Amino acid sequence: MYVHKVQYYETDRMGVVHHSNYVRWMEEARIAFMEEGGWDYGKLEEAGVFSPVLEIRCAYRRPVSFPADVTVEVSVREFSGVRLKLDYRMTADGGTVCEASSEHCFTTAEGRPLRLKKAAPELCAWLEDLAAADTER
Amino acid sequence: MYVHKVQYYETDRMGVVHHSNYVRWMEEARIAFMEEGGWDYGKLEEAGVFSPVLEIRCAYRRPVSFPADVTVEVSVREFSGVRLKLDYRMTADGGTVCEASSEHCFTTAEGRPLRLKKAAPELCAWLEDLAAADTER
Amino acid sequence: MYVHKVQYYETDRMGVVHHSNYVRWMEEARIAFMEEGGWDYGKLEEAGVFSPVLEIRCAYRRPVSFPADVTVEVSVREFSGVRLKLDYRMTADGGTVCEASSEHCFTTAEGRPLRLKKAAPELCAWLEDLAAADTER
Amino acid sequence: MYVHKVQYYETDRMGVVHHSNYVRWMEEARIAFMEEGGWDYGKLEEAGVFSPVLEIRCAYRRPVSFPADVTVEVSVREFSGVRLKLDYRMTADGGTVCEASSEHCFTTAEGRPLRLKKAAPELCAWLEDLAAADTER
Repeated sequence: MYVHKVQYYETDRMGVVHHSNYVRWMEEARIAFMEEGGWDYGKLEEAGVFSPVLEIRCAYRRPVSFPADVTVEVSVREFSGVRLKLDYRMTADGGTVCEASSEHCFTTAEGRPLRLKKAAPELCAWLEDLAAADTER
Repeated sequence: MYVHKVQYYETDRMGVVHHSNYVRWMEEARIAFMEEGGWDYGKLEEAGVFSPVLEIRCAYRRPVSFPADVTVEVSVREFSGVRLKLDYRMTADGGTVCEASSEHCFTTAEGRPLRLKKAAPELCAWLEDLAAADTER
Repeated sequence: MYVHKVQYYETDRMGVVHHSNYVRWMEEARIAFMEEGGWDYGKLEEAGVFSPVLEIRCAYRRPVSFPADVTVEVSVREFSGVRLKLDYRMTADGGTVCEASSEHCFTTAEGRPLRLKKAAPELCAWLEDLAAADTER
Repeated sequence: MYVHKVQYYETDRMGVVHHSNYVRWMEEARIAFMEEGGWDYGKLEEAGVFSPVLEIRCAYRRPVSFPADVTVEVSVREFSGVRLKLDYRMTADGGTVCEASSEHCFTTAEGRPLRLKKAAPELCAWLEDLAAADTER
């Protein structure tokens, strides 16, 4: 469970957070989610494992402004060994503010596809377990 | 046809543009698209017509870096009088870099739903014509 | 003492944090500094007290990258009742990464000058005390 | 002379452009200024010449909002062969909105100091000429 403190500079002249920022909070929450699982994103990149974003989707449910704490829950919806699908649920003051999802692949620093099973078998197993647990719910 | 000049500050340490920026380019292109049609977004807001983003989707096809010119084509996919769906095709050096879409509604400054047909009938007609032309293609 | 967790999206293709982000961290730290003193920035604005930035200065000492925790210390260098000068010292891993300062005035929502002594006497006294304490050091 | 079209996402809830964006416009203008002189920033980096920012200063004179065109004039105030000082004057609707300056050094990709006279003698001469012309004014 990741909490993002809304910043003043994230608001726009409509008086609420600009919608582009939610995409950044997804990244913040994704990195924190991996960290909680023991996966340091910085170290993964040093080890040559990169995870570009292939697709994102955000459905904005209710505006938030400054100041506010937005809680972002991340879950692994699907993982094929190649393609990773994550879901995000963002809430503030008990209400849903945004539902989102992202898709990722895994590559080398040069952007070539990378078989996660070979390059980082433990990360691969962790993601597979989370995807399986998500399906059972 | 809108051209965004990629900025250095839009890149991240992967060496390419950070994916959150494309959402901002969609906004730039959307505003330019309306301007070309004679609709000044600033003046619409002064007249009490706001257009919040309900949903966005980006499918990243190929990374771009700095320096690069990204062309963004906007089209009206659907307009119900209440909900507006736009499509975006972003290209650089002749190749598609991102395909995206956004959904919008129309509200007052306070966020209350607004019947565009009443509040801005000419804008409404313009969007309906574009949506109809898009369907015929 | 405020800690900013460096985000991936704050890096640029030089591999380090883009220099424009430090200006945003100053704002984050400034708001947290006021909050610690009991001044909720959101509530001040609701009460009609705005504090635009008149000037900023950043001297970058050493690059930081992702992941890193940057500590930002804020101090009140000078306060005349009209003009507020703040200093910032940002450190990471024990070393200084940036020394900065900002200047502010106080205005109404419409941007008209505001005598803080009248509009928010307790905030005024708090800032005067901090400025005096800073001078004595 | 560089013109930046203010974007909606650059505004904050005070209704005007957030002050951190001016630092980004300085970069945009700086890169355009070099391009006009025949120096492609992307190619310089490919050739191993990097130019980190050591210091920035912005004095905000008047707020700008969306929509607006901000003109940014760049001039070389000083160049020692090692340290480069640039001045920026930003105007909109004929009035000054911001006066700013930046200082830069030149390094390799790894951040080691670089003698510009050796690494890029023509760029060095161009900057020296501009600094001399600025002094004469």
